[in-house]
Amino acid sequence: SLSHTQTPATALPAAEVLTLDTMNPNIKRVEYAVRGPIVQRAMQLEKELQEGVKKPFTEVIKANIGDCHAMGQQPITFFRQVLALCSYPELLNDNKFPEDAKDRARRILQACGGGSIGAYSASQGIELVRQDVSRYIVRRDGGVPSNPDNIYLSTGASDAIATMLKLLVSGEGPTRTGVMISIPQYPLYSAALADLGAIQINYYLDESNNWSLAVGELRRALEAARKHCNPRALCVINPGNPTGQVQSRQCIEDVIRFAAEENLFLMADEVYQDNVYAEGCQFHSFKKVLFEMGPKYSEKVELASFHSTSKCYMGECGFRGGYMEVINLDPAVKAQLTKLVSVRLCPPVPGQALLDLVVNPPQPDEPSYSTFMNERTAVLAALAEKARMTEEILNKVPGIRCNPVQGAMYSFPQIQIPHKAIEEAKKGQAPDMFYCMTLLDEMGICVVPGSGFGQRDGTYHFRMTILPPTDKLKIFLAKVKEFHQRFTERYS
Amino acid sequence: SLSHTQTPATALPAAEVLTLDTMNPNIKRVEYAVRGPIVQRAMQLEKELQEGVKKPFTEVIKANIGDCHAMGQQPITFFRQVLALCSYPELLNDNKFPEDAKDRARRILQACGGGSIGAYSASQGIELVRQDVSRYIVRRDGGVPSNPDNIYLSTGASDAIATMLKLLVSGEGPTRTGVMISIPQYPLYSAALADLGAIQINYYLDESNNWSLAVGELRRALEAARKHCNPRALCVINPGNPTGQVQSRQCIEDVIRFAAEENLFLMADEVYQDNVYAEGCQFHSFKKVLFEMGPKYSEKVELASFHSTSKCYMGECGFRGGYMEVINLDPAVKAQLTKLVSVRLCPPVPGQALLDLVVNPPQPDEPSYSTFMNERTAVLAALAEKARMTEEILNKVPGIRCNPVQGAMYSFPQIQIPHKAIEEAKKGQAPDMFYCMTLLDEMGICVVPGSGFGQRDGTYHFRMTILPPTDKLKIFLAKVKEFHQRFTERYS
Repeated sequence: SLSHTQTPATALPAAEVLTLDTMNPNIKRVEYAVRGPIVQRAMQLEKELQEGVKKPFTEVIKANIGDCHAMGQQPITFFRQVLALCSYPELLNDNKFPEDAKDRARRILQACGGGSIGAYSASQGIELVRQDVSRYIVRRDGGVPSNPDNIYLSTGASDAIATMLKLLVSGEGPTRTGVMISIPQYPLYSAALADLGAIQINYYLDESNNWSLAVGELRRALEAARKHCNPRALCVINPGNPTGQVQSRQCIEDVIRFAAEENLFLMADEVYQDNVYAEGCQFHSFKKVLFEMGPKYSEKVELASFHSTSKCYMGECGFRGGYMEVINLDPAVKAQLTKLVSVRLCPPVPGQALLDLVVNPPQPDEPSYSTFMNERTAVLAALAEKARMTEEILNKVPGIRCNPVQGAMYSFPQIQIPHKAIEEAKKGQAPDMFYCMTLLDEMGICVVPGSGFGQRDGTYHFRMTILPPTDKLKIFLAKVKEFHQRFTERYS
Repeated sequence: SLSHTQTPATALPAAEVLTLDTMNPNIKRVEYAVRGPIVQRAMQLEKELQEGVKKPFTEVIKANIGDCHAMGQQPITFFRQVLALCSYPELLNDNKFPEDAKDRARRILQACGGGSIGAYSASQGIELVRQDVSRYIVRRDGGVPSNPDNIYLSTGASDAIATMLKLLVSGEGPTRTGVMISIPQYPLYSAALADLGAIQINYYLDESNNWSLAVGELRRALEAARKHCNPRALCVINPGNPTGQVQSRQCIEDVIRFAAEENLFLMADEVYQDNVYAEGCQFHSFKKVLFEMGPKYSEKVELASFHSTSKCYMGECGFRGGYMEVINLDPAVKAQLTKLVSVRLCPPVPGQALLDLVVNPPQPDEPSYSTFMNERTAVLAALAEKARMTEEILNKVPGIRCNPVQGAMYSFPQIQIPHKAIEEAKKGQAPDMFYCMTLLDEMGICVVPGSGFGQRDGTYHFRMTILPPTDKLKIFLAKVKEFHQRFTERYS
């Protein structure tokens, strides 16, 4: 009520201030399946197992989230040595640490206020780290220039993506900002758009063509959206999450041309840039392709590209490190962006230190080089093997079809769900949620329903990571196979 | 334009997508003076000094931001030992580390996925850390119960404050959510409210009464605001930022009673809870006072209280650790909050580990106890001495008046600015910005104008931290004195 009731101090008003009815309505529309009800159920099952409750399985295998270390992947030794040195610089006097690790730690500490990673950094990130990121990008992109002033360090990639989307949102009703995202998508995008009250514009990836991205479909989605909102940005995830495809150079060129023609701000989520496994596939950054297309594009198209310490071979999710590079961002808007990030003071400095190591790893003439390369290669080789194995085993199951896992860390297989199961599910939940919940309850296997990422109507999928250790992944895939056959029989 | 122009591929539209005119208008209204133009100017001056440009000073002394380590404060040894052990667990085999540090590190690592601080934690934070936070609160508040389910770890306190405000915002026009904040305030609040498009309701602290908070003023502000918005929350910062006061128990009781009567959600920013220096002053948490007021209040008033690893005696700003405790939050809203924080995956895990040490420091029977206590006591004693010195020296300057720095890390002196200087300033900037910019340019002293925090019309202030080392703080205060006299003469 807006009126000021003269309540005597002894009789307090009974009403709660913050309820489901009075809270921010946008937040109610936010969904994030990767940590949704299925994961809460998995945690409950784990607790019950610990308490000795009998189940048809002895452990829950979680493949719901790209959480590498939690699945047994080991940290890169060099990275952790430098982080220990930065945390407790007394160790710089310890002979056990290699000289290159000490050099890196000294270099990072000198760039920190008071020589401590406990000081705030500049809000855009430590200048030294931003310079190192720029040099990394130049190397990665075969000499295409990069300016440290265009680098913003972030709290994981999610932070930078949400910030960039926030800058883009304006207007009301038919002029409200619309943002194009792929379906299937990584649900950070839909969640951030719901939070901002922006309009989500779906474009569908072509499952029958290995989840490729076709400009015709972009055009269809854009034209439909222009009838009710103001489409201003186009998000692409490459390599794909949850779909595991790696876009061709041609495709990226087409997307850039489309963005230029249609005046769309491009957001390139490239956090899996080192996770490319399939023969003949290669990672092409949007930045590189943009610059190779010449000044007509490279001087015009507004682009933000995102990277993270959480994926690739390091998988350091907990440090929440990341960066974005902005290209052709209006200088006045850039000043606004810098102001906006300053309100949160700075990204976590240990994550910035870690990012610096990712973009400036041991060099061939340094003592830690060979160990670093061995560890890096082993992680990526194991992921490549698991990508291949996942595709092979799943495609042998009648009623499951999946595209090759060319990159990233996920498979997104299509599953046939019998009509009777669909009917059964529709009493309370999405058919693929019903499928995944049953899979979890009966087999202790935790994957995320396709409906949490989006899929064409009438099709059903789940997303699984390829992160469990090889032995466990074999058991995992065998259980999926057994379950799918049993489930299909039960509802046929 | 909303219409789809059939542009031939050769003639790209010239318009930029994201400009000052088309960007999110709320973001344009965000201001954050603590890192605003004055700090950018200070950094420029530092660069010029490095390049050998002659200035009337040889170094810039920055007292603009509560960045303890940057000002030379040393980290707590025990905390950094445990963080090094968590970063590089190989060190657990090293005899140089005390056993209690190793025990803490093992305990934290066991609570992490895969035993690595590189794994994501639960979005609400590591369960073990939340349990330790709860135990800390129970001890702090003399036995008042605390439930780990009500603890949300965060990326510094700013993150949790902005999240809680976001949940509270709804309605349009006269039903739009209004939030009461003190003037002067810490500009995170005004920035977050601008970002959310919520209505800022100012209540003024009583400068003549040592920045105390009077319920009469709260009521005045609330009644005025109810004519144009829907006031739903009341924010209090105690100990005060930028004002350095410590609220009395009576005042906190009055505020709680007011919130209960007027149906306001209470937000208590208590990040300076260990920073209390003045004799006769004591920190009282809102939670403790609420529960001591009996079930009529403790079972009704909705409260969120915030804490951080960035302040107190540890000053670990760079790790971005923090937590909030929510009391009487509607369970359905709590589920929405948990969902919302899951979109960002988790707070930085090194910051969570650090927070665990802050709430569970070395105990009297442990080997690190005496070093820890000596370090902690030395930091707090030095701050207390600098608080006293700041007040004493500033109050000797004709035309400067400041209240005692009872707590926190700041003084917010009132400065008399001559009419001629006000006239001079009004050509381009606020009078106190003109004063602070001149102070910076002539003396190399960096403080933040009071207009960045809010102040009564016609009064002028600046905020300075008491963090420079004692010797440097003396020079700093002498320079302020010299400048103020010179500035006053120049414009008289």
